[in-house]
Amino acid sequence: MIPLALHSDRLFSSDPVQRDLSRALYATIKDLPIVSPHGHTDPQWYADNEPFTNASALFITPDHYVFRMLYSQGIKLDDLAIPRRDGGAVEQDARKIWRTFAANYRLFRGTPTRVWLDHAFHEVFGVRERLTPESADRMFDRINDCLARPEFRPRALFERFNIEVIATTESPLDPLAHHAKLRDSGWKGRVVTAYRPDPTVDPEFEGFAANVEKLGQLAGEDSVTWRGYLAAHRNRRAFFKSMGATSTDHGHLTAQTSDLGETECEALFWKALKSKATAAEAEAFRGQMLTEMAKMSLDDGLVMQIHPGSFRNHNPQVHQRFGRDKGADIPTRTDYVHALKALLDRFGNERDLTVILFTLDETAYSRELAPLAGHYPILKLGPPWWFYDSPEGMQRFREQVTETAGFYNTVGFNDDTRAFLSIPARHDVARRMDCRFLAQLVAEHKIEEDEAFELAPELAYGLAKRAYKL
Amino acid sequence: MIPLALHSDRLFSSDPVQRDLSRALYATIKDLPIVSPHGHTDPQWYADNEPFTNASALFITPDHYVFRMLYSQGIKLDDLAIPRRDGGAVEQDARKIWRTFAANYRLFRGTPTRVWLDHAFHEVFGVRERLTPESADRMFDRINDCLARPEFRPRALFERFNIEVIATTESPLDPLAHHAKLRDSGWKGRVVTAYRPDPTVDPEFEGFAANVEKLGQLAGEDSVTWRGYLAAHRNRRAFFKSMGATSTDHGHLTAQTSDLGETECEALFWKALKSKATAAEAEAFRGQMLTEMAKMSLDDGLVMQIHPGSFRNHNPQVHQRFGRDKGADIPTRTDYVHALKALLDRFGNERDLTVILFTLDETAYSRELAPLAGHYPILKLGPPWWFYDSPEGMQRFREQVTETAGFYNTVGFNDDTRAFLSIPARHDVARRMDCRFLAQLVAEHKIEEDEAFELAPELAYGLAKRAYKL
Amino acid sequence: MIPLALHSDRLFSSDPVQRDLSRALYATIKDLPIVSPHGHTDPQWYADNEPFTNASALFITPDHYVFRMLYSQGIKLDDLAIPRRDGGAVEQDARKIWRTFAANYRLFRGTPTRVWLDHAFHEVFGVRERLTPESADRMFDRINDCLARPEFRPRALFERFNIEVIATTESPLDPLAHHAKLRDSGWKGRVVTAYRPDPTVDPEFEGFAANVEKLGQLAGEDSVTWRGYLAAHRNRRAFFKSMGATSTDHGHLTAQTSDLGETECEALFWKALKSKATAAEAEAFRGQMLTEMAKMSLDDGLVMQIHPGSFRNHNPQVHQRFGRDKGADIPTRTDYVHALKALLDRFGNERDLTVILFTLDETAYSRELAPLAGHYPILKLGPPWWFYDSPEGMQRFREQVTETAGFYNTVGFNDDTRAFLSIPARHDVARRMDCRFLAQLVAEHKIEEDEAFELAPELAYGLAKRAYKL
Repeated sequence: MIPLALHSDRLFSSDPVQRDLSRALYATIKDLPIVSPHGHTDPQWYADNEPFTNASALFITPDHYVFRMLYSQGIKLDDLAIPRRDGGAVEQDARKIWRTFAANYRLFRGTPTRVWLDHAFHEVFGVRERLTPESADRMFDRINDCLARPEFRPRALFERFNIEVIATTESPLDPLAHHAKLRDSGWKGRVVTAYRPDPTVDPEFEGFAANVEKLGQLAGEDSVTWRGYLAAHRNRRAFFKSMGATSTDHGHLTAQTSDLGETECEALFWKALKSKATAAEAEAFRGQMLTEMAKMSLDDGLVMQIHPGSFRNHNPQVHQRFGRDKGADIPTRTDYVHALKALLDRFGNERDLTVILFTLDETAYSRELAPLAGHYPILKLGPPWWFYDSPEGMQRFREQVTETAGFYNTVGFNDDTRAFLSIPARHDVARRMDCRFLAQLVAEHKIEEDEAFELAPELAYGLAKRAYKL
Repeated sequence: MIPLALHSDRLFSSDPVQRDLSRALYATIKDLPIVSPHGHTDPQWYADNEPFTNASALFITPDHYVFRMLYSQGIKLDDLAIPRRDGGAVEQDARKIWRTFAANYRLFRGTPTRVWLDHAFHEVFGVRERLTPESADRMFDRINDCLARPEFRPRALFERFNIEVIATTESPLDPLAHHAKLRDSGWKGRVVTAYRPDPTVDPEFEGFAANVEKLGQLAGEDSVTWRGYLAAHRNRRAFFKSMGATSTDHGHLTAQTSDLGETECEALFWKALKSKATAAEAEAFRGQMLTEMAKMSLDDGLVMQIHPGSFRNHNPQVHQRFGRDKGADIPTRTDYVHALKALLDRFGNERDLTVILFTLDETAYSRELAPLAGHYPILKLGPPWWFYDSPEGMQRFREQVTETAGFYNTVGFNDDTRAFLSIPARHDVARRMDCRFLAQLVAEHKIEEDEAFELAPELAYGLAKRAYKL
Repeated sequence: MIPLALHSDRLFSSDPVQRDLSRALYATIKDLPIVSPHGHTDPQWYADNEPFTNASALFITPDHYVFRMLYSQGIKLDDLAIPRRDGGAVEQDARKIWRTFAANYRLFRGTPTRVWLDHAFHEVFGVRERLTPESADRMFDRINDCLARPEFRPRALFERFNIEVIATTESPLDPLAHHAKLRDSGWKGRVVTAYRPDPTVDPEFEGFAANVEKLGQLAGEDSVTWRGYLAAHRNRRAFFKSMGATSTDHGHLTAQTSDLGETECEALFWKALKSKATAAEAEAFRGQMLTEMAKMSLDDGLVMQIHPGSFRNHNPQVHQRFGRDKGADIPTRTDYVHALKALLDRFGNERDLTVILFTLDETAYSRELAPLAGHYPILKLGPPWWFYDSPEGMQRFREQVTETAGFYNTVGFNDDTRAFLSIPARHDVARRMDCRFLAQLVAEHKIEEDEAFELAPELAYGLAKRAYKL
């Protein structure tokens, strides 16, 4: 048996001066509540509070960070119980899947996934041995035993994780039934939604026209006219806001924005509905909708998030067989300076609007994002995202952003995850890495110690809470 | 009161081996004179030697590094006394502006601006407390008291800063009256000009045709013919050289160069003068002028500097209300490999020409700039520029450039600043960071200690002096 | 005399915790045999086993890393005995060339070339003084004396370097006579070839049509038809495989791949043969050939390597006077996400194909390459290449790749060199830097010590051997 321990100095520099400062800073923030302003957990978990089924269904099958790595080394997704779109048979033996995972656990060495998994094993399930082929069955049984107990149901974990508030993400077409059930349940946990209109603003999304029609039905608006369509969005935003939403989220291929006249918008919208929009027109329409959403945010106060740069479903065979979000989304070069100009020309100088920018192109940190956020009042920078939600990714973010944008044009951490069990681990990584960065600034006499102690809780808690109005 | 101190080990690594080596290296170069071969201080300061008016007018209003950060957090430029183009009223109360600055000084934590300001407060004005709302008035009064004394006038500070030579930057349309006054004044401080022809070589510059006409008048050439236009440049370059210039400076949007036939040049020039040039033609013309300037440099020996990659005046509202250089210039991706080819094909192998390249796109360091400078005899790399004139920026520059281009294809430091008081601070940061980098090389046994002691004064002083022929 | 020593801790961190761990890891792998799966040494050296002529001919004239740096500082290539294409006279005095080199040895401070040279001087020739003008003659004589002795002939060095296997790179037009001679010689050293078809798949390569014709002759196929051309490649690949090849190598300007119908391929091929292909068509043809080669690799099992991104012969004057590979190849921005899609759509999910990707654009590491290799079963990442075969380059590679792709989607080190004497030095640098990286992971508690000890020999030896099927 190989022991599993979480070292109390993990992720800190091994330089004694920096390590000791990191420790001291971390001690003041490690127990702060978790504010999770952007994520993809399933609200049904909290609404129904049913137990999670088993270790494989909890850790492997839903987590594309995990199964894409196994897939990259030749393991079939069918063998990991990833559901097929055609409903065909996939492996059903959860224990067998867990053993495959254990046999390949070495693949995750040096990755944040490994850090998150070990954290969850150790902290949530009390595991004290490393996952290996030899320990696989014992761990599988132990986790499953835990999951059957009431203190491992979603609401209990939510409370144990010390989550002050968590946001989920829903399409405008979602009736938010789980959120309604939650609101009526009397449970005190705060779960809010966020408005993610992609299926209704992207002409290239599957079923766009039908989605727009359904949007109109839900909103009681004639959504096949441009004005009715905008009114429908305003209506749904108001409904989302009534269900706790404080933000919108926009996952576009690029950061392109447009600012077109109404006639042109109407023409584009008509083409989009009729599936006659060219790729350039679809892009222009998506860009126009970012500007429209910014305008609506000025009115209703929802904070706007732009997440550009992912080439979704890069692998057509995987997409065809297993659908979206299967680890085959690949980052691309992303321009912000030209792309955002239409929106910024119109609204960039507002003082009652917040637009939070994310990137999958780290080259933009020092070249574009920090200079933009260090000038425009509406812009703030989201934390390192997706592939960069990692120790090295966080280090690069702070190193490349801080000198130009400072700390106060950033918005703390968000976990952006569907993997509920990883949430405490991810926030812990962010808190440790931020303390490490602050400790280095102090050790190199760039800021003073009292300033680091003031900044640490801001980065861990305050900035996110204020930026997202939570 | 919170004390303000400058730690003697600031910016050095906290690793004891590296820190001790850094200290030893730094001790040998910290008192070397400042060679400032590229900057934007106002020659009138030295010519007239009038006192600076007050702390806010010295530190805030003229420094776009400072006010853009305040602006990014919702503070109006009007409230910081930034002059409006329409002459409209802006805040005039210098003390009130200083208090706003003090109330927001936390925004600069982790930025080089903070390092420069604290250095100036401490070293120039003897301040021993941190700028806070509580200390704001005391510091304001102290600085203003100092400024009224003769030893704080520009020439006295120039001497106190131990500046051996400083270059300013002027347009060919500038009569260089301040430089003439300086030359005739008997003062021993060496202030030279640099030839920055942008207003007369960029068809998209405000008033291009008028500028060209004025250029011809100043030069006594018929500057509306292509040949006369080139002759006018040669004439003005000679005049600038007679006023001490050893270099030219070119601030283009891209690094594009062209090498066209005379007929084509004439046609482009005519279109440019008539405002009929397309964007591509304007770009081709600017590119042609880089090649023409390289040719002239071969003849007259002026060192050529190319500063590409800034999207100027990105924020039209700020530009319209307050004009140029208001913190709204944003870096863009910059290609060098294809862009410079026309110039390099023609002159790249010359041994009597120096072209110094700068970048706002750090991705070019290891991919394009170091390989180019590590091959072509005419090319050398300028120091990290603008947003990257910072500790982390300098570290990235050395880490990404040295292995391919070595140290001797770089040209030491230049401060590129309008903020006179920041000059000693900026050179001090560069010297410290270079010593830190050298110390790391020694500590990791990549170079020997005697080599680091030979390199340190080259990076701080020798390389700049020789590359710029000062 | 300035002593030359190789510090036993060179390239390790100066942090004691990390240094001690690095030492311990390195001790377990430093004596592992060298597996060199990709390089450009001359097979004739091993076949004929003639002595190297002199120090300058060994270290300077054939090494574009060395002479490009001298050239960048104004030293003429003629003065370094670089042969002219027109056969004109160049410097012939090897001692004089060596003295020029010694007088400029400072230029290499901080570069990997310096590390490799000192390593070879010290370890191969027993030199114990630094190369300076003063020591130049002594070192020149010492090295030449050594070279005249049998234990400095190529095969003896090969054995002394503990090379288990080395791959050279040959064009399909090469008869592999040296490899045949080697095979028949009875010598036990393992030297294999690799299939590098660039001259026969790139319509823009000098003499493409003649090359294709010769390919057909060698293969006994009618290579001016599309089918015959493909058959000829299959035939030559089989021949190369019979001479030990386990891999192919593709040095394209971009990573573009195509997947066209047979009719379109035939038309492109015809245009290419007739020199009628546009630049876009030449690119499409090269891209098609990558896909064809992937298909052939599925059949014959050769591992495929793609080395894109070098703008070859950037300096036309140097190219015209001295030919290819003269230090004037410059990296360019390289897209992988879109470029590789045609090949990946067709073969990306295969489990019996390995495609190893290299880059000269480090921005692709975290943005494109690690996410691609962390998903697609066929993809693995080659080590940092060319300009990035350096300590900092290796550090950036591991830092930017590991968190997303892990260690097992990389393939260990390869030296890619023509400089035979640098091979042990280069592998030593890679082994040290990998131990350093692993030590940091352990010191920061990201992986455990036992895992680092398991990974170290994989990175130094195991991964390369398995990935290249050696």
